[in-house]
Amino acid sequence: MTPNRITILGLGLLGGSVGLTVRKHLTDCTVVGYSINGADVETALRAGAIHFSASQPGAAVANADLVILCTPVSAFPALLQSIAPHLEPTTIVTDVGSTKQNVIAAATQYLPSPSQFVPSHPMAGSENQGIAHARADLFDNATCVITPTPANAQESIQKVESFWKALHMRTVHLSPEIHDQYVAQVSHLPHALAAAMVNITDDQALDVRGKGFLDFTRIASGDGALWEEILRDNRGNVLESLDQLTAELGRFRTMLAEGDTDAMKDWLNHAAQRRRDLAKHKPTPSAR
Amino acid sequence: MTPNRITILGLGLLGGSVGLTVRKHLTDCTVVGYSINGADVETALRAGAIHFSASQPGAAVANADLVILCTPVSAFPALLQSIAPHLEPTTIVTDVGSTKQNVIAAATQYLPSPSQFVPSHPMAGSENQGIAHARADLFDNATCVITPTPANAQESIQKVESFWKALHMRTVHLSPEIHDQYVAQVSHLPHALAAAMVNITDDQALDVRGKGFLDFTRIASGDGALWEEILRDNRGNVLESLDQLTAELGRFRTMLAEGDTDAMKDWLNHAAQRRRDLAKHKPTPSAR
Repeated sequence: MTPNRITILGLGLLGGSVGLTVRKHLTDCTVVGYSINGADVETALRAGAIHFSASQPGAAVANADLVILCTPVSAFPALLQSIAPHLEPTTIVTDVGSTKQNVIAAATQYLPSPSQFVPSHPMAGSENQGIAHARADLFDNATCVITPTPANAQESIQKVESFWKALHMRTVHLSPEIHDQYVAQVSHLPHALAAAMVNITDDQALDVRGKGFLDFTRIASGDGALWEEILRDNRGNVLESLDQLTAELGRFRTMLAEGDTDAMKDWLNHAAQRRRDLAKHKPTPSAR
Repeated sequence: MTPNRITILGLGLLGGSVGLTVRKHLTDCTVVGYSINGADVETALRAGAIHFSASQPGAAVANADLVILCTPVSAFPALLQSIAPHLEPTTIVTDVGSTKQNVIAAATQYLPSPSQFVPSHPMAGSENQGIAHARADLFDNATCVITPTPANAQESIQKVESFWKALHMRTVHLSPEIHDQYVAQVSHLPHALAAAMVNITDDQALDVRGKGFLDFTRIASGDGALWEEILRDNRGNVLESLDQLTAELGRFRTMLAEGDTDAMKDWLNHAAQRRRDLAKHKPTPSAR
């Protein structure tokens, strides 16, 4: 069920880590890589993240069982257009994009058959971008969300699921719409909150920050251009989550201003309990 | 300059950790402990966090060079009242409270001489409360803010500073007012934001959270009753920081809703740069 030959398009943190992890766990699989950035191709070859490189996306996907789009999502449309004439009918295309609805729209527009595109989102990353930070254990025990479309055959979905499982990930199936709502809550809005908090904090106050502040704001050190794109891509859901959060902060403000001690304790303890439960329970594997 | 005999009042995470750390780094110092909770006293004795226990706060402080208040701040007024008649004139009292202005007011009211109280705030802790989580390395390389009052003699301030330095902390001096403003930004408001985010996130969305969300929300698992007290104690500053944050989120909302790509990138990159600088630069030791 696992692929004999894969093509990684885009050789940054995620593309490089996919390559290193495939080389570690799927030792019979041939890994072809393409990047617009020649230095990244060199690094990927030297690090053993890919076996071969190709100078064009179309040449890179020839004879691949599985193609994985690992560039920023803004590069997907052009990339899909250029690989479309070179794909075998049996080749499955997937991706690592943080949002799914726009990506699916692009695949539907440009690929010969929309059934070939099985979207996925491995929930792994780092505030450090670039292939220099790629790791063969980046995906270990992390969750990969697969968001099949009605066009996908069961067999194609299973092929993509087996692939991520072979990379030691847990897989979860969600609809693209629900996926985009959930990541607004657990990833995109938290990024904006951490950035806002860093931006309003006095320079001298930063001097007395403890470990709590460092952990709370770590995600804010991610690349601004990349995150602008993610937030723009998921704008509707991020705005909706932001409005919910603003309303919740309004409730907090009232409790604090009015000195409603009991309500405040309940509110803080509710959050504490939910957060402690997260530490106890691993995410459900293969939840559907 | 370091004390020969200290008394720890309150034997939870911080009191227990002070004891363990003193036993490790100040091996000639005698450590006396008091707690309202008998089981915590037993644990502290067994763990070697204290040499002796006393059954009353007054008896505990007899002949101490330094007394450290390590209970929640709500217990400080009663504690200060009960130790006041038993303090030697040369004994210095300090504390580990997260806010300083109210604590100073209580010490001024109850101690025979307000000059004896030198307030401090070791910026170390954990979302796990209680002496069971006490550690001899909790304070290592962390910052301790000392907030002297006009009543304090230079010698008394130096005594408290030497003590925390002997526990391997960096020390910073701030006025009590500035301290309380800064901790609203780097500790109290972030706690409320993390709690709000956890509270509005769908159960099923929590299932697909990655490491970023876990780090962002870790502080929210702290005890609700303890944090309610801290937030109430620093209400004015927390409300002011919250209003700044709300305004900043309003700016973020406008950029996102209007698709102002360049402004958004700048905003995100400004935060990313500030956060990366924090990772690079250690806090200034002994900044004044």
